[in-house]
Amino acid sequence: MSLIFVAPDRSLSAWKDAIHKVDPNLDVEIWPQIDNPKRVQFAVCWNQPKHVLDNYPNLKAVSSLGAGVDHLLEDDFLPADVNICRVVSSSLIQQMKEYVLGTVISIQRNFVHYIRQKDQQQWQAHTHPLASDLAIGIMGLGKLGKPVAQQLSELGYQVNGWSRSPKTIENISTFAGRDEFSAFLQKTQILVCLLPLTDETNGILDLETLKQLQSPSWIINVARGEHLVDEDLIYALDTDIIKGAWLDVFSEEPLPDRHAFWNRSNIMITPHIASITQPSEVADQIVENYKRALSGMELNYEVDRQKGY
Amino acid sequence: MSLIFVAPDRSLSAWKDAIHKVDPNLDVEIWPQIDNPKRVQFAVCWNQPKHVLDNYPNLKAVSSLGAGVDHLLEDDFLPADVNICRVVSSSLIQQMKEYVLGTVISIQRNFVHYIRQKDQQQWQAHTHPLASDLAIGIMGLGKLGKPVAQQLSELGYQVNGWSRSPKTIENISTFAGRDEFSAFLQKTQILVCLLPLTDETNGILDLETLKQLQSPSWIINVARGEHLVDEDLIYALDTDIIKGAWLDVFSEEPLPDRHAFWNRSNIMITPHIASITQPSEVADQIVENYKRALSGMELNYEVDRQKGY
Repeated sequence: MSLIFVAPDRSLSAWKDAIHKVDPNLDVEIWPQIDNPKRVQFAVCWNQPKHVLDNYPNLKAVSSLGAGVDHLLEDDFLPADVNICRVVSSSLIQQMKEYVLGTVISIQRNFVHYIRQKDQQQWQAHTHPLASDLAIGIMGLGKLGKPVAQQLSELGYQVNGWSRSPKTIENISTFAGRDEFSAFLQKTQILVCLLPLTDETNGILDLETLKQLQSPSWIINVARGEHLVDEDLIYALDTDIIKGAWLDVFSEEPLPDRHAFWNRSNIMITPHIASITQPSEVADQIVENYKRALSGMELNYEVDRQKGY
Repeated sequence: MSLIFVAPDRSLSAWKDAIHKVDPNLDVEIWPQIDNPKRVQFAVCWNQPKHVLDNYPNLKAVSSLGAGVDHLLEDDFLPADVNICRVVSSSLIQQMKEYVLGTVISIQRNFVHYIRQKDQQQWQAHTHPLASDLAIGIMGLGKLGKPVAQQLSELGYQVNGWSRSPKTIENISTFAGRDEFSAFLQKTQILVCLLPLTDETNGILDLETLKQLQSPSWIINVARGEHLVDEDLIYALDTDIIKGAWLDVFSEEPLPDRHAFWNRSNIMITPHIASITQPSEVADQIVENYKRALSGMELNYEVDRQKGY
């Protein structure tokens, strides 16, 4: 029995070390160096190449290396009877809270203006809204969205939340389903996307959505690039429908050199770093799920392949 | 009896309106249009010109328009029997929490790099420390410093605090006095100055202080420009003793065009906007202190002119 890591362009030795700190006897291999495909029963993947996962006839389960699982759900070569799970670490939640809080404050307090003004030797104050007058709307109230919403609320912002099914969170106005989507958008100035990527949410950040935000409005996308319709964002910015965007994820990563986003001064770009999985924090979860998979137990943090999250 | 505002280069009509919302009968005048100097019993000041405050023989008390009072303490023409007070608003604390949190996150999560990389069409990820591995040191644990320290601690950072007299704050390692200053600095990576400006704290951010910080180190100055020895910061940055600085206050404001700070890419500059007093929030405090001054009661938020805070 072995556990394999499949993640091209990632340094995986720290992952192997972290697993062995939890269980020194566990047989860990790093793709493509796999001795005996028949022994592979558990794979931990990030952006795995097509066809890789149908090489292991005894594969029981696959874990994402991070919180996102769309690279697994979209893999047509993953056998239907293989269970999917993700890792959840306090650090992923912590990092996402930091990132969203940092971008919200940077927008509210004009930090991007001040950084650029500094580089142009310019001293000019800009007014800023009070946090209590600024309405943040969080799309997705799951493992990441809920603590982010709570953190913003605790810091004094007005927070609205939207999710597929109704949720109740203290101090947060919640909206659910397509029926309440417009009401949610109309109460929101800074829209933060923390949704899972599914057929229903693909392209949800389109012109129709952006048009309904309360002016002046911004979007922050820390979910997946496919949530956003790129050309609709460009149109909305160029026609002053929205004021700016802070993006960490893109349909194609790295963002291609000629992409229109690079030339818009009101789009901030970070290279998919909002929340990065730290091996030492999730190694025990991977080992636990590996052992659960071998014994046929239900996995922790298992993903419903139909729902897509 | 009248209350006057003395604050050149500030639009004061919003202040007059806010006072009248609290008490429509109160006689409010805006310097230099003062009908009868003998009727002036209370002045609210920000960067008042020299000699102005000795024109009012019946002046009982002076309030700062903000949290800082050094413009009053340094005014040699303010009669010794005039009491000094400040305003304290939840918004000042709130805004300072936002600003310091925003700058700490921007430093930790490399936002300045990413904003500049974006403008150069560059996609490159940088590693970042976990909040729990990053030690923030707060100098000054008063009305602003304490809530800032608590906020950072709640968000998961390691927080140390230093003040003149010993204080106990939950989850924060506190240090007091000159004797424990080195121990405090040696445990700090990001040093945040929120001290009052006194003879003892003037120039406290000097080379000797900067040298003792834990590498890599940054400073954030949101107190007064005079806390910092400008040439020592330049030297420390140019010789890699510290990594960067985020400054909101300067000995001379606006920062002069030829100042060396403008030419250092690792210095961020904001034009004294960290925390701005909002009239509607503090008008009731000013009216209350005005009435207290008239009746001879002790003022709220009174400043000890000897201690300087």
